[in-house]
Amino acid sequence: MRVGILGSGLMGAKLGTIFARAGHDVVFSYSRSTDKLQRLARDAGGNARAGTPAEAAESADALLLAVHSSRVDDVLAQAGDLARKVIVTCSLPLNESNTELVVAHTISGAEALAKKVPGAHVVAAFQTLPSEVLFDVFAARASETRPSLIYCGDSDEPKRAAATLIRDIGFDPVDAGPLRSARYTEPFALLIAQLAYDGEAGPEIAYRLLRYGKQ
Amino acid sequence: MRVGILGSGLMGAKLGTIFARAGHDVVFSYSRSTDKLQRLARDAGGNARAGTPAEAAESADALLLAVHSSRVDDVLAQAGDLARKVIVTCSLPLNESNTELVVAHTISGAEALAKKVPGAHVVAAFQTLPSEVLFDVFAARASETRPSLIYCGDSDEPKRAAATLIRDIGFDPVDAGPLRSARYTEPFALLIAQLAYDGEAGPEIAYRLLRYGKQ
Repeated sequence: MRVGILGSGLMGAKLGTIFARAGHDVVFSYSRSTDKLQRLARDAGGNARAGTPAEAAESADALLLAVHSSRVDDVLAQAGDLARKVIVTCSLPLNESNTELVVAHTISGAEALAKKVPGAHVVAAFQTLPSEVLFDVFAARASETRPSLIYCGDSDEPKRAAATLIRDIGFDPVDAGPLRSARYTEPFALLIAQLAYDGEAGPEIAYRLLRYGKQ
Repeated sequence: MRVGILGSGLMGAKLGTIFARAGHDVVFSYSRSTDKLQRLARDAGGNARAGTPAEAAESADALLLAVHSSRVDDVLAQAGDLARKVIVTCSLPLNESNTELVVAHTISGAEALAKKVPGAHVVAAFQTLPSEVLFDVFAARASETRPSLIYCGDSDEPKRAAATLIRDIGFDPVDAGPLRSARYTEPFALLIAQLAYDGEAGPEIAYRLLRYGKQ
């Protein structure tokens, strides 16, 4: 797949690198520093390059939105027309100090995003994990029991694209239903962050859904 | 431990039964039907009996609050003075149709409960799992990898009591920090419910926190 990365912070940089190493064509975009984007593309190897948000969006099969919520409007404006695009968002509707969700329960950040880009297909994913665990999980992708990664969205085809990306970086995709489930996955992401950054075990954590009963 | 169960719905009935089978003294209370409470106590075996909420609270080392949010005020009034009591709550601040959290992000159901009973120690636990999985997990408690169960609260001793109960029914307790983390654990509980009741795999699900990196 061709994957455009909007945002080159911890999540965007690491996920883009891993997508490239998993064999996808990746365009890194939206950093204050063009040098950083070029270094990311070089270090990722494979088919990765640096570009503008518009270039990242242009021929992308999926876009990863990985910016702080305060930058969403700006990066969307720079990306141009996103009608019919698949947008996988790991952006959370956080306040400036990253301590509280500013949107929830009657709406979610992902649903608010879907309203901003009415022609696009939004999938909420990659929210519920610390970036620190990404390379560990990718390195262990051949192991029998993979961590889960919850995603949700309203359209089947875009959800399949997101599930492919999730699978390719070493996680088991878990479908949490419609995009409105982001009202729950976004607070869950903050719970994971709390465990990762305020807990004693360190930030390299993930979770696995376990099934009992018949199976 | 002596455990008082306030509420005899799915969670209260099953958790009380399992606490009794794990060796705790259990008092079931707060059902419309006294017969139901007596049947629960009989079926649980061990040191289980039926009682009023006041009897359940009287000499309890820990109380499990397992009623619908619309019944919290009533059961607290019946339980009497709860100063210095440990209250482990699995009650969620749900609306009448159980479809939305009515409290969150600037408060949580567990924090609201703590405000109602200022002398008591509230621990939020047993929220993030479907009742259907409880007996499976208890039956598998000798297995090497246990499911996790997230809990949070503001005082160490009551949290240790909750962790003991969690461990005794087959889960690994995971400390999510202060009671305000219930702002995240309560939406996470709804995510688990969504996966359990709207997913294809059935309701017998749990989750396990995985640690990577140094460990």
